[in-house]
Amino acid sequence: MLSFQVEATSGRARAGRMETAHGPVETPVFMPVGTAGAVKAVTPRDLQDVGATIILANTYHLMLRPGDALVAERGGLHGFTPWHGPFLTDSGGYQVFSLAALRTLDEDGVAFRSHLDGSPYRLTPERSMEIQRNLGANIVMAFDECPPSDAPREAVAEATARTTRWAARSRDAFDRLPARHGHAQALFGIVQGGVHLDLRERSAAELTALDLPGYAIGGLSVGESKQNMLRVLDHVPALLPEARPRYLMGVGTPEDLVEGVARGVDMFDCVMPTRNARNGQLFTRAGRLSIRNAVHRDDPRPPDPECGCYTCRTVSRAYLRHLHLAGEMGAAIYATIHNLAHYVDTMRAMRQSILLGRFEEFRQEMRSRAAGEGES
Amino acid sequence: MLSFQVEATSGRARAGRMETAHGPVETPVFMPVGTAGAVKAVTPRDLQDVGATIILANTYHLMLRPGDALVAERGGLHGFTPWHGPFLTDSGGYQVFSLAALRTLDEDGVAFRSHLDGSPYRLTPERSMEIQRNLGANIVMAFDECPPSDAPREAVAEATARTTRWAARSRDAFDRLPARHGHAQALFGIVQGGVHLDLRERSAAELTALDLPGYAIGGLSVGESKQNMLRVLDHVPALLPEARPRYLMGVGTPEDLVEGVARGVDMFDCVMPTRNARNGQLFTRAGRLSIRNAVHRDDPRPPDPECGCYTCRTVSRAYLRHLHLAGEMGAAIYATIHNLAHYVDTMRAMRQSILLGRFEEFRQEMRSRAAGEGES
Repeated sequence: MLSFQVEATSGRARAGRMETAHGPVETPVFMPVGTAGAVKAVTPRDLQDVGATIILANTYHLMLRPGDALVAERGGLHGFTPWHGPFLTDSGGYQVFSLAALRTLDEDGVAFRSHLDGSPYRLTPERSMEIQRNLGANIVMAFDECPPSDAPREAVAEATARTTRWAARSRDAFDRLPARHGHAQALFGIVQGGVHLDLRERSAAELTALDLPGYAIGGLSVGESKQNMLRVLDHVPALLPEARPRYLMGVGTPEDLVEGVARGVDMFDCVMPTRNARNGQLFTRAGRLSIRNAVHRDDPRPPDPECGCYTCRTVSRAYLRHLHLAGEMGAAIYATIHNLAHYVDTMRAMRQSILLGRFEEFRQEMRSRAAGEGES
Repeated sequence: MLSFQVEATSGRARAGRMETAHGPVETPVFMPVGTAGAVKAVTPRDLQDVGATIILANTYHLMLRPGDALVAERGGLHGFTPWHGPFLTDSGGYQVFSLAALRTLDEDGVAFRSHLDGSPYRLTPERSMEIQRNLGANIVMAFDECPPSDAPREAVAEATARTTRWAARSRDAFDRLPARHGHAQALFGIVQGGVHLDLRERSAAELTALDLPGYAIGGLSVGESKQNMLRVLDHVPALLPEARPRYLMGVGTPEDLVEGVARGVDMFDCVMPTRNARNGQLFTRAGRLSIRNAVHRDDPRPPDPECGCYTCRTVSRAYLRHLHLAGEMGAAIYATIHNLAHYVDTMRAMRQSILLGRFEEFRQEMRSRAAGEGES
């Protein structure tokens, strides 16, 4: 089981601490995405250097390649991959709905074809739990249905109701299957309901009735407006138990993280820092920086003069731009290290401000910075 | 100027030490190739970890992108790139002859079109020296003509004679142009002559008459047989001054390095460890290992159980194979770190055996290992 303590609050923002079999996780926390069991372009040494404490891996990708049976045979993610800290795995549902071809949904689960070779697979709540038991992540997600942002209310209502039924089946299967790798795992439920507050309320009520050790807010950052996302976030965290961690899935920009924490969210994941890094976009305290831009051609400054990461200690914008234009892998490595450091630093700064009871001041400062910033 | 001391010999093998403005280089030494001012897939921290002491950068690539003027403006390679140890730059000649399109050669130099965008450029001994003064490497190479391995003797003779004339012009231009970045640079000459020993003799005699601080053996590993390469290497090092470093350009496999050292060579560079790493080939003490092979599917061993590098301390063959098949950048990062560690370790082991007067035993041991090894 996962232990979680809220250590301090500042407004609705919370500073907490999870204990896992693979080490503590201080919250609020950003979890870098390691889709295939590796955060792209970096090594565990880089992740430790930037201060990352927990990594997300994707059930969908790992079940297809190398296969969860192989990962299990090699001791689960902690044995197979070189990251020995805590892991969280998603349920595979989101990726099946967004990536897989020719999927067919019924009450039992989803049949789909692999995006790699077209071969047929099936995911159900029970199979998702089996895979996640094989992978051995410290935190496991219930199998859910995440409807697209433009789905009609009726479809969202149906998906939300199914998510509840699948969460109960997930919990039953999770409880029935033993942990395989000598450490406890914790199952989180996922609140759905799109931008409909009444559906969100019903989903939260039905899921919290399952008394799970943590809850996620799913179905945001899937195309809805920022305004709608914030409206849901104004409402949902308060529907979840105070004593359990709250995880906002797939969000977002540094500003989104601040707004999430302001509303009582503890955990976040997003591909943005790593994916944007590979495309040459760096997040800095002075705004976003597109390293391709000619303005950086001979700029001797580090990407972010206020940042202490390996990249900012080591390379200039001019050099990074050169590597990016030359298609050198180093460009992705340096940018990924920096972006992850920026995200982790932002979370740590938020945590400190909460511990000091000054979160609102921090948030206002971030907003003034954001207002003054430009894209470069 | 570059200082060089031979510290010990064992047979014809030499252990020496160069002093540069950016630190010492113990020889025999392998120089990782950092074509565009970056060794592909790794950072300077990785290079320091594996024990690399000097990096090669390519004049041809840097003159095209980002341009030697920009590099000069940012303090030369030591200011522009994050590698602050010694650099060697080649003259651009080899790459112009092998990479550039529509080249026209005359006595003055070579006109060619960039492989990047087709725009016209010109390299002459004088321009090569100007670029290498701009780049500011500790060791710069004379502009030479390297004929293909299948060139008729007459063409090789002509290229060799021109290489001598260009070496004299290189030296004059080098002496005329001031060092730009506050430290001394050393100009090495390049012995050509293909597989023709009399041409090699003439080239060595003409170049050593220029009294340069170091000499390279060029035009090997360009397609000739291993037997021919070794025949030239049996002969040429002895034609070069004892007190100056000898550099075998573009060579080679770990076995080639041993055979080079056995014949009195001090310095080597080759893309093989880094390029092959990106293709999934790892050099180990038990032979070469193709990480794609199914035999590694569930192998928990590190790539080389006898290696102490970050990769071998951190990942299994099973995980590395997974990353490689998934197209993850991590596969290239881990394999590059290992291959460079293997090359640098091999050089260090040779150096130790020379200092102990036991180089021949080391060489025989390498040969027995090689005889017992298989590709996996």
